[in-house]
Amino acid sequence: MTSALLEPQDLGDRDLRLRATAAARGDAPFDLLLINGIVVDMVTGERRAADIGLVGPMIASVHGPGSRDDALQIVDAEGGFVTPGLIDTHMHIESSMVTPATYADAVLPRGVTTIVWDPHEFGNVHGVEGVDYALAATRELFLRVITLAPSCVPSAPGLELAGADFDADVIGALLERPEIGGIAEVMNMHGVISGDPRMSGIVLAGLAASKPVCGHARGLEGPDLAAFMAAGVSSDHELTSGNDLMNKLRAGLTIELRGSHDHLLPDFVETLNTLGHLPQTVTLCTDDVFPDDLHRAGGLDDVVRRLVRYGLKPEWALQAATLNGARRLQREDLGLVAAGRRADLAVFKDLGDFQTTLVFANGKCVARNGQADSASPKTDAGDLHASVKLQPFDADDFRLRSHGKRLRVATIDRPRFTRWGEAETDVVDGFVTPPEGATLISVTNRHGKGDGKPKVGYLREWGCWNGAFATTVAHDSHNLTVIGGSADDLALAANTVIATGGGMAVVSRGEVLASLPLPVSGLVSEAPLADVAEQFASLRSAMDKVVDWQPPYLVFKACFGANLACNAGPHQTDLGIADVEKGEVLSSPILEILS
Amino acid sequence: MTSALLEPQDLGDRDLRLRATAAARGDAPFDLLLINGIVVDMVTGERRAADIGLVGPMIASVHGPGSRDDALQIVDAEGGFVTPGLIDTHMHIESSMVTPATYADAVLPRGVTTIVWDPHEFGNVHGVEGVDYALAATRELFLRVITLAPSCVPSAPGLELAGADFDADVIGALLERPEIGGIAEVMNMHGVISGDPRMSGIVLAGLAASKPVCGHARGLEGPDLAAFMAAGVSSDHELTSGNDLMNKLRAGLTIELRGSHDHLLPDFVETLNTLGHLPQTVTLCTDDVFPDDLHRAGGLDDVVRRLVRYGLKPEWALQAATLNGARRLQREDLGLVAAGRRADLAVFKDLGDFQTTLVFANGKCVARNGQADSASPKTDAGDLHASVKLQPFDADDFRLRSHGKRLRVATIDRPRFTRWGEAETDVVDGFVTPPEGATLISVTNRHGKGDGKPKVGYLREWGCWNGAFATTVAHDSHNLTVIGGSADDLALAANTVIATGGGMAVVSRGEVLASLPLPVSGLVSEAPLADVAEQFASLRSAMDKVVDWQPPYLVFKACFGANLACNAGPHQTDLGIADVEKGEVLSSPILEILS
Repeated sequence: MTSALLEPQDLGDRDLRLRATAAARGDAPFDLLLINGIVVDMVTGERRAADIGLVGPMIASVHGPGSRDDALQIVDAEGGFVTPGLIDTHMHIESSMVTPATYADAVLPRGVTTIVWDPHEFGNVHGVEGVDYALAATRELFLRVITLAPSCVPSAPGLELAGADFDADVIGALLERPEIGGIAEVMNMHGVISGDPRMSGIVLAGLAASKPVCGHARGLEGPDLAAFMAAGVSSDHELTSGNDLMNKLRAGLTIELRGSHDHLLPDFVETLNTLGHLPQTVTLCTDDVFPDDLHRAGGLDDVVRRLVRYGLKPEWALQAATLNGARRLQREDLGLVAAGRRADLAVFKDLGDFQTTLVFANGKCVARNGQADSASPKTDAGDLHASVKLQPFDADDFRLRSHGKRLRVATIDRPRFTRWGEAETDVVDGFVTPPEGATLISVTNRHGKGDGKPKVGYLREWGCWNGAFATTVAHDSHNLTVIGGSADDLALAANTVIATGGGMAVVSRGEVLASLPLPVSGLVSEAPLADVAEQFASLRSAMDKVVDWQPPYLVFKACFGANLACNAGPHQTDLGIADVEKGEVLSSPILEILS
Repeated sequence: MTSALLEPQDLGDRDLRLRATAAARGDAPFDLLLINGIVVDMVTGERRAADIGLVGPMIASVHGPGSRDDALQIVDAEGGFVTPGLIDTHMHIESSMVTPATYADAVLPRGVTTIVWDPHEFGNVHGVEGVDYALAATRELFLRVITLAPSCVPSAPGLELAGADFDADVIGALLERPEIGGIAEVMNMHGVISGDPRMSGIVLAGLAASKPVCGHARGLEGPDLAAFMAAGVSSDHELTSGNDLMNKLRAGLTIELRGSHDHLLPDFVETLNTLGHLPQTVTLCTDDVFPDDLHRAGGLDDVVRRLVRYGLKPEWALQAATLNGARRLQREDLGLVAAGRRADLAVFKDLGDFQTTLVFANGKCVARNGQADSASPKTDAGDLHASVKLQPFDADDFRLRSHGKRLRVATIDRPRFTRWGEAETDVVDGFVTPPEGATLISVTNRHGKGDGKPKVGYLREWGCWNGAFATTVAHDSHNLTVIGGSADDLALAANTVIATGGGMAVVSRGEVLASLPLPVSGLVSEAPLADVAEQFASLRSAMDKVVDWQPPYLVFKACFGANLACNAGPHQTDLGIADVEKGEVLSSPILEILS
């Protein structure tokens, strides 16, 4: 195996091409002949019976059924539908809380042969060392992983402290590596639009390297969207509605239609169906998949499956997931079942459930009936362990101190689409009583960069918590974040996570209800997916006992984005309450001592 | 201006991007604002009113009509349809018999902003010096010319002598130049399919350079087509029917649908309409446009116009001519009217006649109402003059000598799709009497490579000629080719062309009826297009008096392909009668002396 970005050159090998040419014209046997398949044509949209002859990592011939039988190995597709391997154009392996090898073993047998990984979380925790790990851990996989340079380390510079800081020089140096495929989702939209030197420099580094600059254009429209694109960003996956999809198609962005927000997919499908054709600029991505969802439903295959279930033609969903993805990646070797292309193939039993019977990567059969032929090689995570540089806390660490009697404090109101609030409250025995109805949130720098003390804030409209949740997965700086009803529970949850070297914990009234250790970077477990999925599912269940969710905003997922300071509105970070629009951090929620 | 291939970097300029971003968000004026246009959306297929703000060579913003009025210059599109500039994905400037500057001035005002030029003819006559001229003569044009490395110099090695010989090393050296965009139409299909080292080496050089290897897959299907693609060729423009188009779409080739064979276009349109969508792999090209056609009807704009006339939706024709072309060229900066893309724009009065009112290239208004703002800079052709290295001939030079009395001779039967024939004939006074009904053809190496003597052969089914036609434009080696009824007329025609330093001449019974001097390389005139077009039209008319054409095979155009030895069947070359399938050259048509 060669690394993803160097790989196209392997198809330029003289002997390979001569062997493939000879096999195609009938003067030599194929290495492998896939018979009895129905090719789903990504160009014409047709389905037709065809046999496929492979030589090395390449397709040498796609020809009429039964017209050839000379091959070193013959594999029977048994009437299955043959498509190019699926391409996930934007995702974060870390979201699945498993190692790249484990992720590969989860999705490759499901027909996903290429993923575009933004190792944003590893980057935020470990800096370049995290990207080095991403490359090392994917180089030998059968899953093709195109690794991008994380653009936003941290995603809200000045508003939080991550484990590293990638300026344009760091990004430029990463882009010089042939293995780095471009710049990953540029989330600091405000920085780009305003022409801030740091973000402009990062985008310009991508343009200078002639590599794609991927976007995160949440809520952008009108002049802001034009400015974001004029700066050099060319894609988006942060779609919020069918109208938003149409606006961004019209704007000329490449769309990475993502599966992680399932409730939006029916609207996307209706929009595309109304349009009457599938634009070549529509690709598919997963973005984030929790471990239990990955284990149960899969990766990009599940995005295809759900789009079809919601009414998209299978041919369109597949074209978006293959040929259009290859186009975006400028990978002429991918995305078609055609002579001269790379032999990445999936064979699906049908075009509804999309269960695979066979998967080929680089001409090699890597999975049968949904099972990988062999486990992917693991990579030692080495220094990525021991990433939580914190000592255990006391409950008082999660109590705000003040010398007054009555205070006016700032609150962070409403999950996800946050807004500023204010409340009055008392000081009792030197500690601020949380405002009525408030939920506590604390964020502590865990990268050895701050004073190691929690910054405490007050959330409102987060329901009533009879416990606490601690996590070292906390976008995007992944500082130790704890949310809950009482300082005692916050301390217990935090200490549970510190003890496991990172991860998540749910506690209630002095009892640990669930714990998910994520000892690699505080992000990822080295356990098998099934175990991580089970632990994560238990954790989700435990959370259901601690808080009454109120979808679509007050949901479990909101806990991981509560300090996403690059988004509009107030967000708690390790520095205080950050507001990206004002460009300010309020170091303490205490606004005024009233008496 | 920068050269076409280096050019994408100019959009990476820091100041440009910052200026464009500021203008897009409304903090600075645009350099130019195009108002009152209807954008034809190449992604959604919609038409919608929008204004377009340009900064430098770039589109900074596409926004609602009237929402901005701050610009250094405002240009009124007057309700015209705004599209990306048209992209011609395969063509030969030499076919129009004018210089690149003159060609640019002909097509740029018609909305064609990018052409992909195979300087195959200059290459065959002058070798690398011809390619150097191609690059030098296009570097300063507003028309974006992406020059490819001619793959077939000569197109039938061993069967003819061109002015140069490009092996894989020469091609590899050309591809190292950033300005060279890929390998041009690989015509030696047999060489590629059979794995011949020369042609395999040339294709591999393209793969090694990660640049497109363009094809010429005339008549290929089944194992031959698969082998051609397995070798590394990825496009074709030699389509012969709607079925052929479908087969090649299914095969996964990029299609360069060409306008030069007008009679095929209705079938192509019907095929695409039946398919029900326009595949992203369909691009448009002109291939060859004679000077009078160029003058009268234009270049790629006329391909779009005719496709629409034959029933293709304007949006499809335009998408093929813009976004799909950009995709093929992997030029992310072209093909869309969108912020961040290059400001190559055409404004058409309507989507039927496709008459332009405005054309922008790199953000600059280069033409209004079909007229260029200024003439393109000319390039001195220098050593490309005096390319006809021949002395005048006697009529006897065009008579075959023999010492026998009665002979069996080989003939070349049927124009275009030639086949071998035989005839018996007499020898009178030491000269062979041409077989009954035969037309004479002679080919003489004009590159100083042979003995300077004509090779004479006999054509049949070429009608009755009462005159002769001489040309130094004779695909693909461009040796001096003369076709006619008598040796006397052949000599007069040949000497007329030699006297003008190359070109074409029509003579009849001792009189010169028409002459078109092409002193640059014997291929191109430095005269204005109108003059060349008029001379060429006169020449066409003169030819109508000399021979009764029998379309579709016995047509004027057949005279230029009579020695296209890379095609199947016998063809006269400067070495004799060549047969690519046998890999042999018959140095004399005399097969046997019977008495």
